Amino acid sequence: MPDSSKAEHVIGVDFGGTKILSGVFDKDLKCLARAKVSTKAERGVAPVVARIGRSIREAIDEADLDIKQVRAVGIGAPGAVDTENGKVIFAPNLRWTDVPLKKELEKELGIPVFLENDCNVCTLGVYETELKAKPRNMLGIFIGTGIGGGLIIDGQLFHGFNRTAGEIGHMVLEINGPKCGCGNRGCLEALASRTAIFRKIQGAVKEGQKTILTDMLGADLKDLRSGDLRKAIRKGDKFVERVIEEAAEYTGIAVGNLINIFNPDVVVLGGGVIDALEGEMMAIIMETAKDYAMNGTFKGIEIVASKAGDDAGILGGAVLAMRNSK
Amino acid sequence: MPDSSKAEHVIGVDFGGTKILSGVFDKDLKCLARAKVSTKAERGVAPVVARIGRSIREAIDEADLDIKQVRAVGIGAPGAVDTENGKVIFAPNLRWTDVPLKKELEKELGIPVFLENDCNVCTLGVYETELKAKPRNMLGIFIGTGIGGGLIIDGQLFHGFNRTAGEIGHMVLEINGPKCGCGNRGCLEALASRTAIFRKIQGAVKEGQKTILTDMLGADLKDLRSGDLRKAIRKGDKFVERVIEEAAEYTGIAVGNLINIFNPDVVVLGGGVIDALEGEMMAIIMETAKDYAMNGTFKGIEIVASKAGDDAGILGGAVLAMRNSK
Repeated sequence: MPDSSKAEHVIGVDFGGTKILSGVFDKDLKCLARAKVSTKAERGVAPVVARIGRSIREAIDEADLDIKQVRAVGIGAPGAVDTENGKVIFAPNLRWTDVPLKKELEKELGIPVFLENDCNVCTLGVYETELKAKPRNMLGIFIGTGIGGGLIIDGQLFHGFNRTAGEIGHMVLEINGPKCGCGNRGCLEALASRTAIFRKIQGAVKEGQKTILTDMLGADLKDLRSGDLRKAIRKGDKFVERVIEEAAEYTGIAVGNLINIFNPDVVVLGGGVIDALEGEMMAIIMETAKDYAMNGTFKGIEIVASKAGDDAGILGGAVLAMRNSK
Repeated sequence: MPDSSKAEHVIGVDFGGTKILSGVFDKDLKCLARAKVSTKAERGVAPVVARIGRSIREAIDEADLDIKQVRAVGIGAPGAVDTENGKVIFAPNLRWTDVPLKKELEKELGIPVFLENDCNVCTLGVYETELKAKPRNMLGIFIGTGIGGGLIIDGQLFHGFNRTAGEIGHMVLEINGPKCGCGNRGCLEALASRTAIFRKIQGAVKEGQKTILTDMLGADLKDLRSGDLRKAIRKGDKFVERVIEEAAEYTGIAVGNLINIFNPDVVVLGGGVIDALEGEMMAIIMETAKDYAMNGTFKGIEIVASKAGDDAGILGGAVLAMRNSK
């Protein structure tokens, strides 16, 4: 490996089932450049590792830097991760089992790579960059295509026995509720993720529900995005408003449950859905969480929306790289 | 305070809304004697503190010991507890707010007193006395009149921001489920506690449901106890069997949720309901938890029933006293 003593920059990689986003950050965690490539998981492990390498090199090039100026890479992967050995243990969306991603990427790049679960990476990023007074314990909840979370205990990511702690998206809130991708029914993810929200809207439209969304996007709502929901609500669409209120209520119940169980100092909500609909959802989430938290458990606990938006993953990866390569 | 350097014994106190049970333990945590008095919470703080003192003195007398031979007292109180300052912050069943119980009891007894939440005390007792290989992280779930829990993280009780962590009984599993004492609907406690089970049976009997229990106890089922349910099931009562199966399924879903969220090394179930119905419930709880835990989260996690039975509270109190007075 080259001498990285003068290398001040770090790379954060948000590695998902659909896309790989890499960001170059300076020592103050300012993002200098980004590069995105599609994942193409169906091609298998080696081609995907090469694509991660490509996105990193493209980001470095975009920032007018050389890889010698990069100290380390931090990467969040969508699944259970063995951080110590740098392995992806199990990632259903990638169909990966026991992949030594750290080792493979270090071979590819020649600089140190640090690996974590994707929601843990986002949680770490929020913890380090958005919270001024560092709380002892924090819960991060990220609502996008799915719902995931991360726990900080005593200032450190908490992994648990199988290194899968924080899988809050599969907390059952409604035993006979809608079917979830995991096979069970009524998980938070099946009630409040972008997928759940879109499915509800598309199902209702098929049944004849009127909404501004079909004027905006056509009857099949093919290119529906979270931002469209915000636009529809602001144009006065009561149907979409109600769907989002319900998603916020389910999320609030989950937050209430988690405050009862874990009683963190701070709960941070993030991800694409929160990013697009913060104004529509956060007040309802907070109010519902307060209703569902037990008497005496809620006082003084902060519930806030992350400001990182789409950059949560790369920012968290940069923090992971920084923390580990100091 | 008297010199306690030669005092080898400890006292554990299980302080509930209905009764106060004190136990004297030797240095090997063997219980030498017990004494029980009713709480009479309606009389107010000072009389209740005096009654705790009385139950402790009676237990010491029963063990043919003198208080000078007692090193310390450990007490579990039903509510949120400030362990550092020895205060009961909030205990709804006692109607207590901000009671300096440690100080008051030390004044009463002249020996050191250590205070914790009751479910935390039980969790600590199980952790120290029942688990040979000490796991890093453990979850205790106690099912009796209500349902409570405790978390051990890195070998220590985890308290959280408002010192109320572990309130797993109020995790919502069925948003439109039965009303809970806390005001919400479908909490685990409203689905699987002794109170919930009895309410379901008594409601069904009123609607004409046939059960052996009415032959055993009369039509009003006035003195129904958890042990009667076991007897009825063993006599072939399919209705009672189904009610207990359902309670075990709800508990299993909760355990699955908690394995997803917290991923402990070990889950221990205890309390009066588990104690009476271990054979009827544990296999269902384990199977359901496995179904509801995400792929990859469940492997190698132990789910076991506590052997402490009714002594969980006093044993845990003794462990608390021992840990703090070494």
